[in-house]
Amino acid sequence: MQKITILIHCQDQKAIIASVTNYIASIEGNIIYLDQHVDADENVFFMRLECEFSAQNWDMDTIKKDFQTHLAAPFKMSWEIYTQEYKPKMALFVSKYDHCLYDILGRYSAGELQLEIPLIISNHEDLRAVAERFSIPFHYVPFSKEIKMEGERKQMDLLKEYKVDFIVLARYMQIITPGLISLYKNKIINIHHSFLPAFPGAKPYHSAFKRGVKIIGATSHYVTEGLDEGPIIEQDISRVSHSHSIEDFIIKGRDLERMVLARAIKLHAERKTMVYNNKTVVFS
Amino acid sequence: MQKITILIHCQDQKAIIASVTNYIASIEGNIIYLDQHVDADENVFFMRLECEFSAQNWDMDTIKKDFQTHLAAPFKMSWEIYTQEYKPKMALFVSKYDHCLYDILGRYSAGELQLEIPLIISNHEDLRAVAERFSIPFHYVPFSKEIKMEGERKQMDLLKEYKVDFIVLARYMQIITPGLISLYKNKIINIHHSFLPAFPGAKPYHSAFKRGVKIIGATSHYVTEGLDEGPIIEQDISRVSHSHSIEDFIIKGRDLERMVLARAIKLHAERKTMVYNNKTVVFS
Amino acid sequence: MQKITILIHCQDQKAIIASVTNYIASIEGNIIYLDQHVDADENVFFMRLECEFSAQNWDMDTIKKDFQTHLAAPFKMSWEIYTQEYKPKMALFVSKYDHCLYDILGRYSAGELQLEIPLIISNHEDLRAVAERFSIPFHYVPFSKEIKMEGERKQMDLLKEYKVDFIVLARYMQIITPGLISLYKNKIINIHHSFLPAFPGAKPYHSAFKRGVKIIGATSHYVTEGLDEGPIIEQDISRVSHSHSIEDFIIKGRDLERMVLARAIKLHAERKTMVYNNKTVVFS
Amino acid sequence: MQKITILIHCQDQKAIIASVTNYIASIEGNIIYLDQHVDADENVFFMRLECEFSAQNWDMDTIKKDFQTHLAAPFKMSWEIYTQEYKPKMALFVSKYDHCLYDILGRYSAGELQLEIPLIISNHEDLRAVAERFSIPFHYVPFSKEIKMEGERKQMDLLKEYKVDFIVLARYMQIITPGLISLYKNKIINIHHSFLPAFPGAKPYHSAFKRGVKIIGATSHYVTEGLDEGPIIEQDISRVSHSHSIEDFIIKGRDLERMVLARAIKLHAERKTMVYNNKTVVFS
Repeated sequence: MQKITILIHCQDQKAIIASVTNYIASIEGNIIYLDQHVDADENVFFMRLECEFSAQNWDMDTIKKDFQTHLAAPFKMSWEIYTQEYKPKMALFVSKYDHCLYDILGRYSAGELQLEIPLIISNHEDLRAVAERFSIPFHYVPFSKEIKMEGERKQMDLLKEYKVDFIVLARYMQIITPGLISLYKNKIINIHHSFLPAFPGAKPYHSAFKRGVKIIGATSHYVTEGLDEGPIIEQDISRVSHSHSIEDFIIKGRDLERMVLARAIKLHAERKTMVYNNKTVVFS
Repeated sequence: MQKITILIHCQDQKAIIASVTNYIASIEGNIIYLDQHVDADENVFFMRLECEFSAQNWDMDTIKKDFQTHLAAPFKMSWEIYTQEYKPKMALFVSKYDHCLYDILGRYSAGELQLEIPLIISNHEDLRAVAERFSIPFHYVPFSKEIKMEGERKQMDLLKEYKVDFIVLARYMQIITPGLISLYKNKIINIHHSFLPAFPGAKPYHSAFKRGVKIIGATSHYVTEGLDEGPIIEQDISRVSHSHSIEDFIIKGRDLERMVLARAIKLHAERKTMVYNNKTVVFS
Repeated sequence: MQKITILIHCQDQKAIIASVTNYIASIEGNIIYLDQHVDADENVFFMRLECEFSAQNWDMDTIKKDFQTHLAAPFKMSWEIYTQEYKPKMALFVSKYDHCLYDILGRYSAGELQLEIPLIISNHEDLRAVAERFSIPFHYVPFSKEIKMEGERKQMDLLKEYKVDFIVLARYMQIITPGLISLYKNKIINIHHSFLPAFPGAKPYHSAFKRGVKIIGATSHYVTEGLDEGPIIEQDISRVSHSHSIEDFIIKGRDLERMVLARAIKLHAERKTMVYNNKTVVFS
Repeated sequence: MQKITILIHCQDQKAIIASVTNYIASIEGNIIYLDQHVDADENVFFMRLECEFSAQNWDMDTIKKDFQTHLAAPFKMSWEIYTQEYKPKMALFVSKYDHCLYDILGRYSAGELQLEIPLIISNHEDLRAVAERFSIPFHYVPFSKEIKMEGERKQMDLLKEYKVDFIVLARYMQIITPGLISLYKNKIINIHHSFLPAFPGAKPYHSAFKRGVKIIGATSHYVTEGLDEGPIIEQDISRVSHSHSIEDFIIKGRDLERMVLARAIKLHAERKTMVYNNKTVVFS
């Protein structure tokens, strides 16, 4: 049994669903999951399908060609097709905080993530020992404003060498260059330790404490050039009270960061996210 | 613009979605919502569609006939079609607790519910004043084990007279007779003040307190003959601690009961629930 | 049995708790609740006690005098003592939205709130019928920038006439004048329909929708001169997804507004909130 | 600065708080945290204090003796005093599931837990590699009904050798013997993968799926002889829908198990839990 995932978006029109499902039926596919969404303001149609094929003569290239000719072209679709047996390659960028790193590597080692982690890149040597503990190649790539272009080049070389499909910033504390952002458009996931759009930028737990909020949060989002302004994938929150210190906020926040980032990674790796107009459609 | 909602379930087969969406396209309908689910264990397919039709010559009876002939018959479907302009008629059954009643009538008066409340039935006179405050006819129907059949007959007469589509037990403290349950199969909604299946039956807050749980809950479900064993529509919870008394549990619980019942009413009235094998499919 | 609630704050010093509890013991009081908090940054001590007295010769004035002499003066305390039998008087300010109003009046009628609602003030006539349904005096007080001072004077006259202790803005859509704010300092509760500090000001649901957040919120806070910048009492959130429209945000938000405002009212009426440095200490 | 934590419970009486806080003041201690609770049904008083002492001549043995003589004896208190610099020793019991193990060891390595993990005990060899990855001694102790007493003896020998203070069952799949339970009374923490008291015993996710619940949960509790009937420390929940399979329940449940167990470990290690009458008082 081959399983594939199809993602589609295009201008909303009549008979899209009928046409796509007819096509799947015509090639003996069985739809095991279908979810669609219409953005009424923008008049855009989104669909995610999972299908399975029992035919031995199943051929991905033929399907892609047919799909382009008979569906994508007439409906002017943007589309992607993935086989579920391929596991996307994820690069981890870290700095000094280790809680998200431990969480991701623990999940990875426990077999929870349908992906591969070919390497970890860091602008500090601190977490090399953690990477070694999990036997993941660790690459130290210094980065600062002054050596931005050199840093970017080394990052890009590594990403190319390891054939990386997407990047996760697990509390990586440096900016990502516009060049890298455009190379991995909607493929770089960041975790921000606040409930965006509240408290963007540095030290959000301190700002939250000062404001006296009763709930703190964390937000995972795709990285764009605007700081903490990219499409939001997932958010979660935790209650706090006057009895919690900033240190308590940080401790509680670590659990939020771990969970929210892990969920975003899973959603992305399983092709459940689509981006449009700086927002995400998340078929979960 | 006419809007209709279609609910379908049948054995899972190839090409169901394609056939249904083809049919909608053929009669110039526009699908504005489609959600489907396959129960893999039972091999049952469920679908909910919302469509809109601009055609002036749109005719419900023709659609129903065509649907039966061309889709329901060949696929052996169970199906229902509703126009969205019809508001279902909901009877409220109450006893002495007034918090759910106030909440429902407040929402109803604020225009939040797509339904009509033609009458309130109670086995006590206590809440007549509340009904009058909101100008809803209030009918006192005594009920006890001894006069069960007489009570049921009076209830059925009123439900028939007011053309009631579904019933909500807003903390109604008497049993519902098997006769009424079978007359309104999957159309009687109860609110139970625990996180079912924990603490079924009487005094769940007392049992929860005694057990020392850290979270309490409420559950709305369709009424079946087994006490608190019907298909669950919605549940929610609230945190408690050692510092909360049974009285605190009851106060916090009232908010849960209100919210969970209100959501179940909304889901049912908007035709977003389907029942199969003592479980619900909730397309929300 | 007389029950009293004592609220204290002062600079943190040694032996405060011992001194206060010694005093309560000396007058034959039994402490049934004690919670304290030290703001380590500001070095401020906060305490809330509930005590009961069985003595027939219990006298509030004597206690207050003793408390001032023996405790408040030497420790330089700010303090308040309330008998639990007195129910504070709450004025409701409303405009056109009725969902919070219905919710509060429903809870009030169901006996859930330890307070009295002597009047409702509105800058529109729209909700008079709701007030009448619950038999609460309704006063129409026009208000706009142009007639600000006249509006304020009428509001103040009514609040004085009805001996109002605190004010709740149940989606009241006009500004509160600095004069009224200073007259009811930390005694005016507002409900804002976002997760503050995200989306202050007008149309927060629209802004939240545009930003593509995955969680929406509501915030109750004491009113200060800075718009939506007062001390936060309570917040709560609800999950949303790409499938929710702005209209869905508003519907879901209504439930948040109801719940968050109701909790803030309860906390305030039960003397469980203290304000310091634009933040609240909430002993719940 | 020495910091100590004091836990007290005794029959509720007048002037307990005053007496204890007077005593702390008399030995130049500064109370930095005080929380108390009265179980009104059982008439039992509970208190947790954190104090700091700057005196160089501070002496724990003297404090303990004085405390016993001047407070514990007259009030008939049960009490414990801990210095915060001592980190309790926790043994991990595991079988084959690794998700909780990875989570705990990740947190431990990241420095989040105020405790030491001197050893891991397992009835299978499967997780030895995980233990080695984190450099924790791993002891294989076979266990089954047939060799129960031999297994218990080996467990007890190891626990004694490593001076273990408390035990965490991180999805350990064997029973704990009554002998071990009584040796570590209220010091063995289990994680059960349901919202207790719903679905005790084996395969709770399967039972939850069959029942069609809309929320699943996890529960950490102290182990007693009754299966899944011990005092509950912490619970949490996650929403599920008809679209989730049993496998989805298990995946979502793993996150709950991780979080709920990690919180219970933290609460216990920080001396924030007290047990009375098969319920916990959790001062968090």
